[in-house]
Amino acid sequence: MSLLTQIQTPQDLKRLSTQELQQLAHELRQFLIQSVLESGGHFASGLGVIELTVALHYVFDAPNDDIVWDVGHQAYPHKILTERRDQLKSIRQKDGLKPFPCPKESKYDAFTVGHSSTSVSASLGMSIANDLLRTHHHAVAVIGDGALTAGMAFEALNHAGAIKADMLVILNDNNMSISPNVGALSNMVTKTLSNPIMQSLRSEGKRFIESLPLPHALELAKRTEEQIKNMVAGDGGLFEALDFQYFGPVDGHDLPSLIKILQNLKQKRGPKLLHLITQKGKGYSQAESAPVKFHAVSAPKPIDKIETKPTAKTYTQVFSQWICDVAKKDHKIVAITPAMREGSGLVEFEQHFPKRFFDVAIAEQHAVTIAAGMAMKGLKPIVAIYSTFLQRAYDQLIHDVALQDLPIVFAIDRAGVVGPDGPTHIGAFDLAYLRIVPNMVIMAPSDENEQYHMLNLALTVPHPTAIRYPRGSGEGIEITETLDIQFGKANIIRKGVDIVIFAVGTMLHVAEKAANALNATLVDLRFVKPLDAELITAEANKHNIIITIEDGVVTGGVGTAIQELLAQNFIFKPIKTFGLPDTFLEHGERHEVLAMAGLEADQFLKDVTEFKHTLMQHVQTPMPIGS
Amino acid sequence: MSLLTQIQTPQDLKRLSTQELQQLAHELRQFLIQSVLESGGHFASGLGVIELTVALHYVFDAPNDDIVWDVGHQAYPHKILTERRDQLKSIRQKDGLKPFPCPKESKYDAFTVGHSSTSVSASLGMSIANDLLRTHHHAVAVIGDGALTAGMAFEALNHAGAIKADMLVILNDNNMSISPNVGALSNMVTKTLSNPIMQSLRSEGKRFIESLPLPHALELAKRTEEQIKNMVAGDGGLFEALDFQYFGPVDGHDLPSLIKILQNLKQKRGPKLLHLITQKGKGYSQAESAPVKFHAVSAPKPIDKIETKPTAKTYTQVFSQWICDVAKKDHKIVAITPAMREGSGLVEFEQHFPKRFFDVAIAEQHAVTIAAGMAMKGLKPIVAIYSTFLQRAYDQLIHDVALQDLPIVFAIDRAGVVGPDGPTHIGAFDLAYLRIVPNMVIMAPSDENEQYHMLNLALTVPHPTAIRYPRGSGEGIEITETLDIQFGKANIIRKGVDIVIFAVGTMLHVAEKAANALNATLVDLRFVKPLDAELITAEANKHNIIITIEDGVVTGGVGTAIQELLAQNFIFKPIKTFGLPDTFLEHGERHEVLAMAGLEADQFLKDVTEFKHTLMQHVQTPMPIGS
Repeated sequence: MSLLTQIQTPQDLKRLSTQELQQLAHELRQFLIQSVLESGGHFASGLGVIELTVALHYVFDAPNDDIVWDVGHQAYPHKILTERRDQLKSIRQKDGLKPFPCPKESKYDAFTVGHSSTSVSASLGMSIANDLLRTHHHAVAVIGDGALTAGMAFEALNHAGAIKADMLVILNDNNMSISPNVGALSNMVTKTLSNPIMQSLRSEGKRFIESLPLPHALELAKRTEEQIKNMVAGDGGLFEALDFQYFGPVDGHDLPSLIKILQNLKQKRGPKLLHLITQKGKGYSQAESAPVKFHAVSAPKPIDKIETKPTAKTYTQVFSQWICDVAKKDHKIVAITPAMREGSGLVEFEQHFPKRFFDVAIAEQHAVTIAAGMAMKGLKPIVAIYSTFLQRAYDQLIHDVALQDLPIVFAIDRAGVVGPDGPTHIGAFDLAYLRIVPNMVIMAPSDENEQYHMLNLALTVPHPTAIRYPRGSGEGIEITETLDIQFGKANIIRKGVDIVIFAVGTMLHVAEKAANALNATLVDLRFVKPLDAELITAEANKHNIIITIEDGVVTGGVGTAIQELLAQNFIFKPIKTFGLPDTFLEHGERHEVLAMAGLEADQFLKDVTEFKHTLMQHVQTPMPIGS
Repeated sequence: MSLLTQIQTPQDLKRLSTQELQQLAHELRQFLIQSVLESGGHFASGLGVIELTVALHYVFDAPNDDIVWDVGHQAYPHKILTERRDQLKSIRQKDGLKPFPCPKESKYDAFTVGHSSTSVSASLGMSIANDLLRTHHHAVAVIGDGALTAGMAFEALNHAGAIKADMLVILNDNNMSISPNVGALSNMVTKTLSNPIMQSLRSEGKRFIESLPLPHALELAKRTEEQIKNMVAGDGGLFEALDFQYFGPVDGHDLPSLIKILQNLKQKRGPKLLHLITQKGKGYSQAESAPVKFHAVSAPKPIDKIETKPTAKTYTQVFSQWICDVAKKDHKIVAITPAMREGSGLVEFEQHFPKRFFDVAIAEQHAVTIAAGMAMKGLKPIVAIYSTFLQRAYDQLIHDVALQDLPIVFAIDRAGVVGPDGPTHIGAFDLAYLRIVPNMVIMAPSDENEQYHMLNLALTVPHPTAIRYPRGSGEGIEITETLDIQFGKANIIRKGVDIVIFAVGTMLHVAEKAANALNATLVDLRFVKPLDAELITAEANKHNIIITIEDGVVTGGVGTAIQELLAQNFIFKPIKTFGLPDTFLEHGERHEVLAMAGLEADQFLKDVTEFKHTLMQHVQTPMPIGS
């Protein structure tokens, strides 16, 4: 590691020869492998862009030039070369390096990323700013072929091409997003990869056309200049249709060539797309052959207490089992995932029901509206989606699903606190933004058995129905043959006096200690919408203090919904709502992030006790109504 | 109108000869012109698809076959031919025909539309359902070239191509969405239009390649089959890259050809794109030459009471004036609109500051993230957007803007009740979904002078800041040189006793009558986030009854925010929140829709009075805390 240790900032790179840069790339790859195998974290993506990262920082001038890494899974080598080598082992851990690029962490991180396909829009904005403010800086976006399937990347390319913006988009093509890619676009890229003569054709093609002996043909060739340009551009047709200058495909691991090409492109004006072919996991044979498995690796030591119940299934696994179970009985059930087959637990479903499985690529908007089309014609679509990504399809949920009141089941995974992926991926908002949508039904299971039977119930509900559950393991209990879950009904877990606690989903278990210690009534709400108005108002009338707890934003959340319900029923009593604060929580293990928000058993007991004491000093007898 | 009056359902078309169909198209066009000029409504789009509508209903078999009209502006001729001719004059009026296709209105309307670019996703879902359920029905999407710029259309095309779905996408290319199109894609289409030999090339090109005498060339030609296919496909390159079979461009007003082509395409399997060239406003010369102006026409008689203050500027006009005023002083101000230059009031800004004006096409996601990129580099972006369309960019607002706490101004027009466009376009949700996002600042002006000075204030706020204002006219008051609006501060309009009314934005004026009649305190909240905690808690403590009123969903809205605030401050008093109900309100004039929700001065007075009386019976003295 003789060279790598000399590199603190990208400036230090500029002194190296091409041969030294190659040595540096080698050291960088070895360092990354060692560091991530020890710390855990995103792995295969970074290995695929070692040479690109070195070349970009050699040719461009960060932080004056802005390099936006799409998604950011692949930015570990970038972090190593930009003042953060020694901290890399802390990545994704509480108070450690952030999982994705973030300008708050480093001036070399041009833009906060995490969700896919934002880089072209962000870079275009920067390019326009460079132009208007006359900074003469460069804007570079690095986007994977998987991320290119999302509509917003297309929107940005279309706009950049139209205004001839000075920007460089680097398509990092490894034929893989997190899962293998789907989509026609991906097929096209694959075709190119399987065609070894494509490169030579690009130069030969033009000469060939020019050498045609037939005057008519020459005339035709001239007239069809646009088409021939497509022809000699290989698979650049799509990008040239969008008025990008297309270059490639180029071997993304050939560092000397990469440097020369980037130096050339740096001089060129206008929108440019450089198509690189790279290998995810490059240089670590296990990751090369199993890039999905090695997308991220876990740390060798188990550090997430909440997740380590070795005998318990995860909520994802329970969903996986459920959808296979019901699909056997009902041929109208179809599953839709936006590029999260593994993460959402649909691997087995695809194996058993390949014709009823739809991975629509990174395309959440389309995922929701295609489900609407299917439901309109009598299918029973299950949209399996992460809470944070459903934000991408909010309009489609309102406009295409809820307005038409279509019976679609949303199996919302990674709801609430997610943990190491940090604030970009937190599922904090779903309860609040879903419950304001008319016609929606929303359930939150407190354990995996409730989850299974809520999913069953959802299939019978003639409205859009969301079941949201967290990342990680359940309570380790059996899935029973039946469970008495009734539409819109909550479940009293324990009867007490003075205090009633209404708990959402798995927060029930955080609340148990306090309920026991304070002899409080404890209610598993089960339904967020519709709330069990009868039970909630009855319990509120019987108790003096009302407490709610949820793992979503407390602003506008379920606690607030209960406040609304009580006010509508003329119950104006002391209430305190617990949940995630009105800030973006930083990353950490799931239990650590929950603790940051006070959603931890001891803290909750302390806070409820304190609230009760404070109340005794505050509450006044209301003045008589009317004057 | 001898033929048109004989047509009740599409079945009646099938009996006509081609010549009779042409006559029918002529009658249909005349009927549409007469009817819409009398009733008001969307105009130019429908005139552009007269022949297409006749051809589709002649060739396909609705409602078994599904025809999804993207956006739906153009579906008036479809409504006329499907049992609704006599009702057309009632369109967009309360209890009249809905402004867009809607299955609840007619079995011939395959899917509820209104927002752009959903048709390909919906049709693909239907096509998949047809396949799985073996119905042998057809799925057809009709999408304009403007709508094609939205990412979700691209997502759907990419998916349809990949799975080789049996579906027909008809690209209705009039080089126009509502405003003239922007985007590289649109440029490409324009190039085709200006090239009269494109069509002949499509047939000649293939023969030319096949006739090449050089063996080497033939070999090359064979190897580059994909590229040559692009070459002979004219501008279909984009669609063929997405694995669609491309047909066209074809004259969309040549009915006999259209019928033959559709009959052929109906027999073909797989994903097909038919590219039609049409003229918006066809057959009505004023609309042909000014299609933006004639996108929709107003009824001759003024029927919207709220909007008809002839001396008052609209909120859109005030925004238009403001952005020109500040842009003169600050060269860092830029404006972004997703294809709503006219609607958002940016025509004048574009004229004066063309380099700082960015119409990004129908691409809300990109609009928000490009603003984030600009703000990151020191520009001051103003995103002018309709409330209902901001739903499309919710994730971008959370993930790219709020998480990075970027100072971007969102000028949200058409907030609250919109009126004749109905439930697809209502701006009911913004207050509720925006206020749960950390770092957001939200203001709602009660008149145009507040709006102007809030916009000024927004430029000084170092956070993402939304100012939301309704469709239509302001109060007719002057824009003053200065106005004392302080960050986070509300404004007491009138002091009273017993009841305090907190009003959001223009709902202040709905509440005035009740405030006067009941001698209530009336507060113009001005800030939705942060709320003026000091003033609100002080007033709540001084009064016995708390009332809130807003023109957004009452579930999770501003009234709810005040409940949250009071509870946090140990104030547990009777409160009633007024706003839009938890349902999708139907269309009508703006004042009619507000009245449906009880947001009308007399009704509000009645409801507040009733609440006060009911309270006297309900409120109990709280039990002592502690047991």
